[in-house]
Amino acid sequence: MIETLQSYQTRNNQQLNAWLDTNPFQKQRLTEAMRYALLLGGKRARPFLVYATGQMLDCTLEELDTPAAAIECVHAYSLIHDDLPAMDDDELRRGQATCHIEFDEATAILAGDALQTLSFTILSEGPIAPTAETQRIEMIKLLAFASGAAGMCVGQSLDLEAENRFVDINELEQIHRHKTGALIKCAVQLGALAAGDKGVAVLPQLEKYAESIGLAFQVHDDILDVIGDTETLGKPQGSDQELNKSTYPALLGLEGAQQKAKALFEEALCALDAIPYNTQLLEDFARYVIERNN
Amino acid sequence: MIETLQSYQTRNNQQLNAWLDTNPFQKQRLTEAMRYALLLGGKRARPFLVYATGQMLDCTLEELDTPAAAIECVHAYSLIHDDLPAMDDDELRRGQATCHIEFDEATAILAGDALQTLSFTILSEGPIAPTAETQRIEMIKLLAFASGAAGMCVGQSLDLEAENRFVDINELEQIHRHKTGALIKCAVQLGALAAGDKGVAVLPQLEKYAESIGLAFQVHDDILDVIGDTETLGKPQGSDQELNKSTYPALLGLEGAQQKAKALFEEALCALDAIPYNTQLLEDFARYVIERNN
Repeated sequence: MIETLQSYQTRNNQQLNAWLDTNPFQKQRLTEAMRYALLLGGKRARPFLVYATGQMLDCTLEELDTPAAAIECVHAYSLIHDDLPAMDDDELRRGQATCHIEFDEATAILAGDALQTLSFTILSEGPIAPTAETQRIEMIKLLAFASGAAGMCVGQSLDLEAENRFVDINELEQIHRHKTGALIKCAVQLGALAAGDKGVAVLPQLEKYAESIGLAFQVHDDILDVIGDTETLGKPQGSDQELNKSTYPALLGLEGAQQKAKALFEEALCALDAIPYNTQLLEDFARYVIERNN
Repeated sequence: MIETLQSYQTRNNQQLNAWLDTNPFQKQRLTEAMRYALLLGGKRARPFLVYATGQMLDCTLEELDTPAAAIECVHAYSLIHDDLPAMDDDELRRGQATCHIEFDEATAILAGDALQTLSFTILSEGPIAPTAETQRIEMIKLLAFASGAAGMCVGQSLDLEAENRFVDINELEQIHRHKTGALIKCAVQLGALAAGDKGVAVLPQLEKYAESIGLAFQVHDDILDVIGDTETLGKPQGSDQELNKSTYPALLGLEGAQQKAKALFEEALCALDAIPYNTQLLEDFARYVIERNN
């Protein structure tokens, strides 16, 4: 699984680099900041889900490069903006200086903006399977929905509003289903649509799977913020507590949070059971989500 | 012309309101900030160009609502982010508090982000003429190109880099052709594509027209910053000088800048000459661009 994750990472990085290379303003600070933030490392969880879902449905890797690159651009832009002083004010991301520290705040804002735009350039221009061509507009709709004011952006807004006050478990789930979950769900949706009708047929099960691992991802992130160490995490351990953020361990206790993650993992496997293809990679990924140490 | 501009404004506002109404998070601060920024006023120059171009090519207004709304969302998002403290640090826009002053910086960043996303939701989901359906992806490509790292965003980045140093006339033109010009050109492109093949046939002339008025728009903006008054402008007069920004009047003198605007206006009319339709509204708009007082 880790080898597959790494090979998808490498492939995704090459794709993202190639897209950035198409920009005529190579020496421009903006382009440099986009490249820096996009290739700063990262698990490439969303591209992984695009590739793993699509390959399960017999897509070639080439047919999945486009949605995988597009969704990673949205994720990267969201991280740049989340790290800004007015938002989470983080100086360290993946063990390196965040974009506004390495460059400057204005450039970081613009780099995030332009990476969001790039995701739609990629999805509208990039190669996809001829059989998926009819799904291209649907892919754009889904990506826009997942990242916008009813998806990731509102999740971030709900999260900011929840700082420094008590948030119950339902509200916390609402935050994370939008902030992190929406884009993870979108990743499997894009992977499925890249396979055309075959993918559309198993969308409901894939969405259930993605909703469970999306939430599990966040629960486990919260757990890592308590039990992880700064070096492995690549960001300061305990930073949630410092910001008085509501977390699953804070609400459920550490053990309760671990049980929650396990239950979500089981839910994810259940959803995969109803899919008549080889779901091994998606299953492995679900396990990775709740067992990873960074 | 002003009546047409106002009727398009009203129509565009209704459309934008309706799109915001589709968001399930109505009471969310993010949605409120998006609505505030989007409906703060503004000339609606880009929607005007979509409507005027499309109507010249026999589109109905209904067939133009979608691209007009989409492009205004991109413009609105760019203004929110431009006004941020890390960028131009403006507290006043169109005579009212800028988004980050009325709300807060984090919300303003997110509102800008979500408005950009909304533009792609609109363009991928909104109704267009059946004959233009084959142009939908092309519209998305054009909007992404015009607003991204080879268009508006790089223009803003070039502009920031040009502060506090000498910029010659070629560089200044390069800045504005990207920062303002790209989206204005995109507006006529979208209006043309909404008319299907008929529009595609006159695209080159329309693009020439748009390039000229796009630049004229900026030259006249620079002129207004010198000769306008704060109340009419809705923003502090003289703010360019305060930021040590290079402007056309600074490089060419006030009279030279006025001649430049006039020459660009003539160029625009020349481009319209080759279009075998009623170009009156586009001509009127070109005149408005260099004669407006705010």
